[in-house]
Amino acid sequence: MLAGLNFATLLLSVAVCQGSRYKDIDSETVSVDQGSTYGSLWPLPQQVSLSEVSFKLSSSSFRVVDAEGSSAGPSCNILQNAYRRYYEYVFGNPRKNGHFKRKAATSELSELQVSITSGDSDCDGYPGATSDESYELTVDQPYAILKAPKVWGALRGLETFSQLVYEDEYGAKSINSSKIVDFPRFQHRGILLDTSRHFLPIKVILANLEAMSMNKFNVFHWHIVDDPSFPYLSRTFPQLSQMGAYQPYTHVYTPGDVKMIIEFARLRGIRVVPEFDTPGHTQSWGKGQKDLLTPCYSGPTPSGTFGPVNPILNTTYDFMNLLFKEISEVFPDAYVHLGGDEVDFNCWKSNPNIQKWMDEHGLGKDYAKLESFYIQKLLGIVAATKKGSMIWQEVFDNGVKLPADAVVNVWMGSGLQEEMFNVTAAGFTTILSAPWYLDYISYGQDWQRYYKVEPLDFKGSDSQNKLVIGGEACLWGEFVDSTNLTPRLWPRASAVGERLWSAKDVTDVNDAYSRLSKHRCRMVERGIPAEPLFTSFCRHEYKGN
Amino acid sequence: MLAGLNFATLLLSVAVCQGSRYKDIDSETVSVDQGSTYGSLWPLPQQVSLSEVSFKLSSSSFRVVDAEGSSAGPSCNILQNAYRRYYEYVFGNPRKNGHFKRKAATSELSELQVSITSGDSDCDGYPGATSDESYELTVDQPYAILKAPKVWGALRGLETFSQLVYEDEYGAKSINSSKIVDFPRFQHRGILLDTSRHFLPIKVILANLEAMSMNKFNVFHWHIVDDPSFPYLSRTFPQLSQMGAYQPYTHVYTPGDVKMIIEFARLRGIRVVPEFDTPGHTQSWGKGQKDLLTPCYSGPTPSGTFGPVNPILNTTYDFMNLLFKEISEVFPDAYVHLGGDEVDFNCWKSNPNIQKWMDEHGLGKDYAKLESFYIQKLLGIVAATKKGSMIWQEVFDNGVKLPADAVVNVWMGSGLQEEMFNVTAAGFTTILSAPWYLDYISYGQDWQRYYKVEPLDFKGSDSQNKLVIGGEACLWGEFVDSTNLTPRLWPRASAVGERLWSAKDVTDVNDAYSRLSKHRCRMVERGIPAEPLFTSFCRHEYKGN
Repeated sequence: MLAGLNFATLLLSVAVCQGSRYKDIDSETVSVDQGSTYGSLWPLPQQVSLSEVSFKLSSSSFRVVDAEGSSAGPSCNILQNAYRRYYEYVFGNPRKNGHFKRKAATSELSELQVSITSGDSDCDGYPGATSDESYELTVDQPYAILKAPKVWGALRGLETFSQLVYEDEYGAKSINSSKIVDFPRFQHRGILLDTSRHFLPIKVILANLEAMSMNKFNVFHWHIVDDPSFPYLSRTFPQLSQMGAYQPYTHVYTPGDVKMIIEFARLRGIRVVPEFDTPGHTQSWGKGQKDLLTPCYSGPTPSGTFGPVNPILNTTYDFMNLLFKEISEVFPDAYVHLGGDEVDFNCWKSNPNIQKWMDEHGLGKDYAKLESFYIQKLLGIVAATKKGSMIWQEVFDNGVKLPADAVVNVWMGSGLQEEMFNVTAAGFTTILSAPWYLDYISYGQDWQRYYKVEPLDFKGSDSQNKLVIGGEACLWGEFVDSTNLTPRLWPRASAVGERLWSAKDVTDVNDAYSRLSKHRCRMVERGIPAEPLFTSFCRHEYKGN
Repeated sequence: MLAGLNFATLLLSVAVCQGSRYKDIDSETVSVDQGSTYGSLWPLPQQVSLSEVSFKLSSSSFRVVDAEGSSAGPSCNILQNAYRRYYEYVFGNPRKNGHFKRKAATSELSELQVSITSGDSDCDGYPGATSDESYELTVDQPYAILKAPKVWGALRGLETFSQLVYEDEYGAKSINSSKIVDFPRFQHRGILLDTSRHFLPIKVILANLEAMSMNKFNVFHWHIVDDPSFPYLSRTFPQLSQMGAYQPYTHVYTPGDVKMIIEFARLRGIRVVPEFDTPGHTQSWGKGQKDLLTPCYSGPTPSGTFGPVNPILNTTYDFMNLLFKEISEVFPDAYVHLGGDEVDFNCWKSNPNIQKWMDEHGLGKDYAKLESFYIQKLLGIVAATKKGSMIWQEVFDNGVKLPADAVVNVWMGSGLQEEMFNVTAAGFTTILSAPWYLDYISYGQDWQRYYKVEPLDFKGSDSQNKLVIGGEACLWGEFVDSTNLTPRLWPRASAVGERLWSAKDVTDVNDAYSRLSKHRCRMVERGIPAEPLFTSFCRHEYKGN
C-alpha cells in the first residue's frame, strides 16, 4: 500500500508518492547501504587510515590510563568521567570473567593511553570559543595512544576510539589498527533547544547533551525564555518565573538545575550559551516585572495588552543591568545571546508616550532606530559584565553599532547568501542557522538536505570565509516537548554535526548513509531514541518506551 | 526567531513561515484554547448532558462493582481487568488514608455500578465486526450506573467515566453529575501498524493498543510481514522467519507473543486483523520458501532476482493452503487481510514460463488477469478456513470476483470519491484509509486535516453509505520504529478516532483543539508519549525518555 512503489524502487527514491493529494515530497536519493570504508565513524575525522589488522579488547583487562607525562591526571574530572563513560559505552555492563587480570594475548589491545600535551590541560576550565579540540589517535600494539593538546580534544578522541570498536561475529569486542588525525573544520557547532514554548525536563536536556557529545557538537544554545513562558528562576527577580513560568515549581529551572546542566555539558566539552531574547519575544517577562513591557494603545487609551520591552524608561535599563549581571555570573561562558529578532513595531507605534519620546530624541517615525537605541544600550550593559554578545541577524540588518567581538546569528532563509556576504564584509563573526531549522519536518530523508549545505557557499573572500565560525541546528519548541524531542532531533542533527566537523569534501551521501545508519543504531544502544533513516533494523532496538 | 511571527500571531495561524525555502506549509488554523463545554472528553460521545453539581471520589472508598442483575460478574476477566485499569488511571497510586472505610459524604460518589444487560455478555469471546459497543452512563448520587448490552460497551463507558473525572484546585478527584448515551458512528475504527519495515518490540505494540483503547479504536490492522522482513514465526513454516526476519530470534513474534498481543487487545475490545499481503510485497517470504516467488529473467536466463508469488505452480497453492490454515487458527478474528496491492508485473512479463502458461490458459498479455487468477484461488483458500477476507482496493479494481462478505480497503488518494462510489455501488463493504496515511508528516497541526475528513463525502445512496463501515489510520513503517512511533501516532490518530466514533456534526475544530489538548496530556499522564498539538504544557510532563 505504499505509494505505487515496490520495495526495490523505494530503496532508490522516495520522491514519488501516492497520487498524493497533500504532500510535496522532496526528491532525495535513498541510498542502499553498501557499507563504508570508514565503518561507523561519525562525524568523519579529517584523516583516517585503517588497517585490516585487528585486536581484541577484554572487558576485564582493558584499561584507559593517563599517559606518562600527560598534563592531566587522576584529579582531572573531565577525563576520569570520560574514561568511565566510554568504558561503559564500549563494554556495556560486562559479565565478570573471574577475578584475575588475564595476561594480554598477542592479538589483544590492553590499553589506551591518553596524553594531554599542552602545559595547561584546561581540565578545570570551561570549553570556550577558541578551545582546541584537535587530537591524534593511534591504535596499535602494545597500546593505543590518544594525544591532544587539551582535554577537549581528548574527549573528541575518546568518542572516536569508541566508534572504532566493533563486535566480531562471536561478540568479541575488536578494533583495527588505525591512525587518526582530527580537528573540527568549524569551531562553533551548536544545537538550539527552546525551553519556553514547551518546558523540557532536565532529564531530556541531559540526554541531548549526551547525544551532542556523540556527534561532536560543542555549543548548547539555550533559548531559555520567550513569549510563552519564563522557566529561568532568577535569584534577583524570582517573580519572573513565579509569574511567568507555566508553573512556578514544576516548570522552572532552579539555580541548582542550571548549574548541573552547565557541569554536565562541561564534562562533555560543551559550552552553554544562554539566550535572553529582547526586546521582542518577552510576553512572559511582563507578567512578573511591572512596567517592563510597552503598554499598547487602542486609540487614546491603553488596550490592556503589551508589546516589546519599553525602551524609553530608565527603569528598563536598571532591570536589565541587574538581570544581565546575574546571568553573567550564573553562566560561565564568555558569550550571552541577546536575541533581538522579530520586533513588532505596532505596539510602539500605538503608544503616544513612545511617539513623544521619539520626537524629542529626533527619531521621528523610525522604529528600527528605536529598536537600535535599545539594543545599543543593552550591548553596553552586557559589555560591562565582560561578556561578548551574540545576536540574531536583524540587529545587524538594522544598523546597530556592534562591538567588534559581536557574533551575528544568521537565520533567515531568504537572501541568505547576501546576508552572509554583508555580515562578513562588515567584519563580524558569523554563525549560520538558516538551513538547519529542524523543527520544520517533512516526509522522507530530510537529513540529506541538511547534509548537503555548504556553509561557505557565498561569494566571500578568504578573510570573509574565516569569519564564519560555524553553525547551529535549531529545534524550536512549538511542536516538540519531552515526548518527541529526542527522536526528532537525532539523527537529523547528526547530518549538521558532520557538515560542521568534517572536511569540506566529505559530501558522499551514500557513504554518509551507511555510516549514519550504524551511528544511529549506536546512539540507540547508548539509550538515545534516535529515529531510523529508512527501512532497517538495529541489532538492539530501542526498548525505552 | 520563528518565522517572522510573534507569539500572538502564531496562535492564530502557522500558515506563514520563514521566507521559507523548503516548505509548503498547509494553512491550518491554530486555535486558542478557549475551553470546551465538554471538558476533556475524547472522542465526544453521541449525547452528553453535564450538570454543574459535582461529587468527590475517594480513593479509599470508591468502588467499581458489578450491578445486581448484570450478566457479567467476578469471573469476567475483561471487566475485572478494566476495573483495575481505570481505578489506576483515575487515582494513580493513592496514598493510604488509614484502614477504615470512610462513610460517604453527601457530596461524594462512592460507587460505579456496571451492568451488562444482554443475556450473553460476550465476556469470554472476542470482539468482532458487529460487536455492540453502545453504553449509557449516568453519574448521580448515590451511585453512578454504566449500562451496556455487552462488555464492549462497558469498556467504552469506563473510558468515558475516567475522562469525566477531574481534579479540583485542591487535588480532590471530582466528577460532575452527568448523563451520557453513546455508540460509535462507524463500526470499524482501526490503526495499521507495520512490523516489517521496522520490527516493533512487543512493548511498543502493547502501549499502542493501550492508547487505542483510550481513543475508542477497536481494530488493530497488523501489517505483520512485507518485503523487508518476515517477523511472524510460523509453526508450519518456521523457515519463513528463520530466513526472512531481520534476525531470527530477536526480531520475531513467537506464537506466545502473538497470543499475548491478541489477549491484551481482547481485554480492551480490540480486534487483531493480521495482514499477509500477497502476491506482491513478498520479497522476505522468498528467503525461506523455495520456488514461492517468480524468478525474474534477464533476456533468456534467470536474473537471480525474484518477483511476486509465482501463480502458475501448484506448490504455491499447497503452501498458501497450509499457511492460511495456520493463520486462521492463530488469529481468532473472523477476517484476514490478504493485501493484494501494488503488484509489479515486470517480473512476470520477463518470465517465459509465465508467458507460456498465460497463453495456454487464454490470458494473453493481461497480467491483471493473472493477478486475479491468483487472488481468486487465494480467496477460495481463505473461505475454506471460514474466514472473511479484507483486501486493498486494487483487487476490486482489477475485477476479481469477490465473495459477498469481502471488505475493500480504499487507500489511494487520487480518484477517491469515484472509488468509494464504485465499491459501494458494487455492494461491497468498504473501509477508508486514503486520507489517513499518518506516516506522511508535515510541519504544523496536521491532525486538523485528518479531523476534517468526512468519510461519506461521495455521492452514494443511503444504502451505499451504510456499506462504509469505517476507516483506519495507517502508520507505515519506512520511517518509524520503537524510537519514534508512539509520539508520531498520538494524538494525530486521535483525530481519526473522533471522526469515526462521534456524530457527523462534531466538526468544531476549536472545540476539538481544547478537548484534544487535555486528552493528550491525559495520555501523557497515563504513560503514552503523545506529542503536543502546539505551544503548551501538561501538568505532568512526560518523564519517560
